[in-house]
Amino acid sequence: MISKSILKLIRSLDQKKVRKECGLFIAEGGKSVGDLLNSDIRCKYIIATSEWLASHTLPKEIEIIKAKREEIERASFLRSPQGVIGIFHQRNEKIDPTIAGTELCLALDDIQDPGNLGTIVRIADWFGIEHIFCSQGTADIYNPKAVQATMGAIGRIHLHYTSLPQLLEELKDKIPIYGTFLDGENMYEKRLEKHGIIVMGNEGNGIGNECAKHISERLFIPNYPIGRPTSESLNVSMATAIICAEFRRQ
Amino acid sequence: MISKSILKLIRSLDQKKVRKECGLFIAEGGKSVGDLLNSDIRCKYIIATSEWLASHTLPKEIEIIKAKREEIERASFLRSPQGVIGIFHQRNEKIDPTIAGTELCLALDDIQDPGNLGTIVRIADWFGIEHIFCSQGTADIYNPKAVQATMGAIGRIHLHYTSLPQLLEELKDKIPIYGTFLDGENMYEKRLEKHGIIVMGNEGNGIGNECAKHISERLFIPNYPIGRPTSESLNVSMATAIICAEFRRQ
Repeated sequence: MISKSILKLIRSLDQKKVRKECGLFIAEGGKSVGDLLNSDIRCKYIIATSEWLASHTLPKEIEIIKAKREEIERASFLRSPQGVIGIFHQRNEKIDPTIAGTELCLALDDIQDPGNLGTIVRIADWFGIEHIFCSQGTADIYNPKAVQATMGAIGRIHLHYTSLPQLLEELKDKIPIYGTFLDGENMYEKRLEKHGIIVMGNEGNGIGNECAKHISERLFIPNYPIGRPTSESLNVSMATAIICAEFRRQ
Repeated sequence: MISKSILKLIRSLDQKKVRKECGLFIAEGGKSVGDLLNSDIRCKYIIATSEWLASHTLPKEIEIIKAKREEIERASFLRSPQGVIGIFHQRNEKIDPTIAGTELCLALDDIQDPGNLGTIVRIADWFGIEHIFCSQGTADIYNPKAVQATMGAIGRIHLHYTSLPQLLEELKDKIPIYGTFLDGENMYEKRLEKHGIIVMGNEGNGIGNECAKHISERLFIPNYPIGRPTSESLNVSMATAIICAEFRRQ
């Protein structure tokens, strides 16, 4: 049975302030919970149906709460709740920026929407980009919507919230720093390296000036036919998918 | 003022059955409404604040309903309502399938999520793919969430709901039919044509057998490093973005 205090904890994990205070976050569904249990993220509680528990073996340190499907449905943040909810410990990560000298990394400048953030983490996982630097204004990766959108990739990808302008300034003469701009160069005509940082900008305003001034490689994702007048733009997660694919193709 | 009957109409346009009966759909926000007013889709009602109306000139045949911002907020399906709602006439489109002999087209096999469908239409617009064939099981493009996700692209892209297996069977010996499969060929090593059909499959099950048997070019979007074991997959709209980008790059 889900006690009142656990139900209250689950509900409150929708708020960033509470998440920060208790250092916990919530993940739902077999795929996400399973991937997190297989990662180095530590689990505190598993709330699951007896069917789910019967088919999974869990480490002893996890507190297990057996619950009826209807109880889990009431506690869930999802529209189509599944038979399991996990409460996990946040990682408080710092990434050594010099990693960008040997690996390709992403940097996110004020990505606002948790769904976009989670989708970007999932794309990074697909393309083997393990490290993401986030500006302080970027959405919290432990927001339940962001966690959900990563589809378990959050267990494999490392995010570090930091001052992005300062980070880029320190790195700018040592590694290539890429960003997309409407007046950038056609990315298909540029040589793209296997290391460095790709900066992706805010949904409405793109890359802010404080970051933009440190970008050495200004790229453009061409539409088709190239130069066709369009009032359209690409959503930031679409743009990330296309640009990461091109880096990895090259 | 928004009358009770108009409010009822707006609310009911959330239901596919009602939309089909009255042949109408709803779009919200300046960008979407503006793009639709500039398309060949006919508008029936514009419900807007006096500020919005003061800065727009509308054709005479549109019935204009001036409303307070709070009224529009109450009527809106959006979390952050904007100052304008439009009610438009659906297009009932048929596309001649032979168009795929000269142009690149998409075919969607039971895409369930309206948000994914709308995002795919937006991607198609960016890459100059004007015609999309949809299976009967694909979400309704006039669902408010789908319309919203197209960000106005719905006015420029043509969708035709039809029996996809039958369509592909008719076309299969005449044009290349592409689809993505986990055991397909690396798409970066294939020659991709400027005409034909790219089939995208259902979120959970991929491309159904009835469509799959007519696909002549089985493609795979490689992850990175190629062959790295991964439990991940790509969301269907991400996969569409990456594959369309590669067709257009080539």
